[in-house]
Amino acid sequence: MRLFDDLADFSLAELDSLIELAGHLDRNPEPRALEGKVLSLLFLNPSLRTLASFQAAMVRLGGGSFVISPEMSIHGLESRDGIVMDGAAAEHIREAVPVIASYGDAIGVRAFAERDNLEDDLADRRFRELAALTDVPLINMESAINHPCQSLADWKTMDDLAMPKQGGRFVLSWAYHPLALPLAVPAATVHMAALRGMDVTVLRPDGFELPEAVMDKARAAAELSGGSVSETDDRREAMDGAHVIYAKSWSSTRHYGDQLGDQGLRQELVDWCVDEPWFENAKPDCRFMHCLPVRRGVVVADRILDGPRSVVIEEARNRMVAQMAVLYRMLKG
Amino acid sequence: MRLFDDLADFSLAELDSLIELAGHLDRNPEPRALEGKVLSLLFLNPSLRTLASFQAAMVRLGGGSFVISPEMSIHGLESRDGIVMDGAAAEHIREAVPVIASYGDAIGVRAFAERDNLEDDLADRRFRELAALTDVPLINMESAINHPCQSLADWKTMDDLAMPKQGGRFVLSWAYHPLALPLAVPAATVHMAALRGMDVTVLRPDGFELPEAVMDKARAAAELSGGSVSETDDRREAMDGAHVIYAKSWSSTRHYGDQLGDQGLRQELVDWCVDEPWFENAKPDCRFMHCLPVRRGVVVADRILDGPRSVVIEEARNRMVAQMAVLYRMLKG
Amino acid sequence: MRLFDDLADFSLAELDSLIELAGHLDRNPEPRALEGKVLSLLFLNPSLRTLASFQAAMVRLGGGSFVISPEMSIHGLESRDGIVMDGAAAEHIREAVPVIASYGDAIGVRAFAERDNLEDDLADRRFRELAALTDVPLINMESAINHPCQSLADWKTMDDLAMPKQGGRFVLSWAYHPLALPLAVPAATVHMAALRGMDVTVLRPDGFELPEAVMDKARAAAELSGGSVSETDDRREAMDGAHVIYAKSWSSTRHYGDQLGDQGLRQELVDWCVDEPWFENAKPDCRFMHCLPVRRGVVVADRILDGPRSVVIEEARNRMVAQMAVLYRMLKG
Repeated sequence: MRLFDDLADFSLAELDSLIELAGHLDRNPEPRALEGKVLSLLFLNPSLRTLASFQAAMVRLGGGSFVISPEMSIHGLESRDGIVMDGAAAEHIREAVPVIASYGDAIGVRAFAERDNLEDDLADRRFRELAALTDVPLINMESAINHPCQSLADWKTMDDLAMPKQGGRFVLSWAYHPLALPLAVPAATVHMAALRGMDVTVLRPDGFELPEAVMDKARAAAELSGGSVSETDDRREAMDGAHVIYAKSWSSTRHYGDQLGDQGLRQELVDWCVDEPWFENAKPDCRFMHCLPVRRGVVVADRILDGPRSVVIEEARNRMVAQMAVLYRMLKG
Repeated sequence: MRLFDDLADFSLAELDSLIELAGHLDRNPEPRALEGKVLSLLFLNPSLRTLASFQAAMVRLGGGSFVISPEMSIHGLESRDGIVMDGAAAEHIREAVPVIASYGDAIGVRAFAERDNLEDDLADRRFRELAALTDVPLINMESAINHPCQSLADWKTMDDLAMPKQGGRFVLSWAYHPLALPLAVPAATVHMAALRGMDVTVLRPDGFELPEAVMDKARAAAELSGGSVSETDDRREAMDGAHVIYAKSWSSTRHYGDQLGDQGLRQELVDWCVDEPWFENAKPDCRFMHCLPVRRGVVVADRILDGPRSVVIEEARNRMVAQMAVLYRMLKG
Repeated sequence: MRLFDDLADFSLAELDSLIELAGHLDRNPEPRALEGKVLSLLFLNPSLRTLASFQAAMVRLGGGSFVISPEMSIHGLESRDGIVMDGAAAEHIREAVPVIASYGDAIGVRAFAERDNLEDDLADRRFRELAALTDVPLINMESAINHPCQSLADWKTMDDLAMPKQGGRFVLSWAYHPLALPLAVPAATVHMAALRGMDVTVLRPDGFELPEAVMDKARAAAELSGGSVSETDDRREAMDGAHVIYAKSWSSTRHYGDQLGDQGLRQELVDWCVDEPWFENAKPDCRFMHCLPVRRGVVVADRILDGPRSVVIEEARNRMVAQMAVLYRMLKG
């Protein structure tokens, strides 16, 4: 494997095999598998889980890693083409990325959406530009429109819970948050759940529809796997018989890149905080998922996070476990 | 071993055995003992020695570690219960601690005193709350009222110097410092020296008595080990026949959490800077100890730190060595 | 090897052997060579390549490292002697350096020029003071006047390209940059190329002559190796038949430590930006070298960096490879 950027690049059999390998490596440590191997970790945006879980994954397999994050570089990294660099930035990504990649056997890159232009972000333009700068095997550690490591971990978490694929009802719900957040996690999640063969409902208020390109990709995955994808703003309808609700806030597509317009729409929606009444007509053991970090009392009530529905810690731990499988496939001789 | 939080949790035989193991691992490296093992390091306060020595200890034993410190997290970590997180903090410790712990085979946590309330700090409330969030084996890397890694290193440093246990005279002396500092090191140190069987004198100016709970715990340790504990503000009396003086500044208990009150008392005490005349009636080879960092010319004179009395570098190196023993006991299969 | 501070400390045969070892370790990994070994990395100035390449080098050889950089320490590090530390700095380098060194089997130290006083910087006074504080094997990771790791990597890069030693024409050229930069790289580079036996021309505008001590050292190296050293401000003359141009900006020696005087001289020299016309009378395949980071459109034109002349990524990767050889010689039992 030379690229881990999108679950859509893999067959269902390949994904099952990756998840099986993840579980196997978790139960049967191989602390010399990647001895002497190096993972370069380039963060253009902040991180906690990704930073920690990739470092831990490499140690568990006997290798190691190093981290470059923007606050470490001398004066930030320039990314514009053809620019005369007479300002603050002392280094261009055209040098930084290939150099950092050259020290590793693989490189992980995190680059969030710029959220100036929806088309650019849907095309993952910034991440594509960074990825094009190196031939070293590459892992997407969250880009404008994807987060394949999170999705693989979430898939495994549902497998661990023996949650049904065919017939499993998966609700991806928008939730309130004071800030306009990127589309990467919702876009990756709706696709992942559809690809897993589940009946996926996107529950979101008016104005927060996911972009058509995101929905189309999820529908294509559902067609492949025997799942389905629908959307609604009706909570009762969405939660009917649900096995799991996956909460996440995201920007208004309608006001993409327009902070004020988004705020105007968003400020009326503070009641979109997942709480026990939401589960009224769901399966009795309906689970709560979230990629973290999560704002308590804003996105979800404390009693959900602290109660038996929540599997957010399991999801986070599975980040490390899933990434071990990816790294093993990518780096084991 | 699943918890290394307080020397008081261990028998004298267990502590001797830990220190013997530390020396053994230092002389006879075991670079594969912990292969594939991960130590999670969570710093809620800054660090130099602890940060470096734990990372080095894990590498020497063949494992690895990762570091999360507050400036890395997206917007700081919220710790208040039941709060609606609509401010700057994007993550709560109730998620952060179990997630970070889940990537490791053990976790080290540093959380200094909040110094709002003496009772809370004496009860190590903040650290207890963090520790209660995970079942993973846990190491106290300095809390409000304890610093067991420092104490184990200091114990070993005195053993290395063949400093007597029974009959050894240990002076813990307050020293001047421009800021009001936490009680963790003096509290841990008076207890450690008493537990080691030494005759311990706490030398401090009026207003800087250690809290009664701290003195009681040290006296109980002395009872167990055959040592003794006393306190005085008389330098000559304290230093009479001393084998070692351990200098450290700390807050005024009388003005705990009251910055102005503490300053008023403190500003008259700039002559509490350890210098050669202090040693007039001590043992000729009386040693100087300090946990570092130390302010030269403020806490202690240059000629002491740079002279033969000082063993501060040996103490600091023994941090790594002592921690290797703790990690070995905690993580070796 | 206990010190890697200056290529001048090694014979030509020793340098050839180091470079051969570097290539050997690159082609034939030895992922257990340094198991359990620790490299302490102390940065008193920022870094990207050095930070990443040393960490990666240690992992590839089976050991590990830890990083201390100034923003991590509690309140910065004091370095003045005899000072009463009642200000912001909580720790003195007289403790910090030996402590950090004591956790490693070797220590790397980066300390840029202070650029107050040319004599001090030419004597590498700051770095000498830091180095004198420890007996642990030590690597210069760039000091006021040297950068031996960069020079070893550059030497290997030219070997990889089969660039001639005797008769090879090496141009070290000053280039425009908005800031007055240190002398470490130009001083190390002119010496390295001369020691490699090349005919070295220093091309620089009036006022940017390298200090006499730097030129004298390079001339002595040329004498040893059969190379030569000259200087000029005439671009055509310098580039005539050149195999390689190594671009770098540096401070005006004439206005050393005088920011305004330097700027007055520098601001007229924005056309010192390496571009294709510079290569008119050079060898057709004349290469472009730079230590990075480099300002595009300021120091060098995009088309050079992005074209076939540039070997800057190879130089950067060779940092890791060359350092592996240094670490292997220093730390392998």
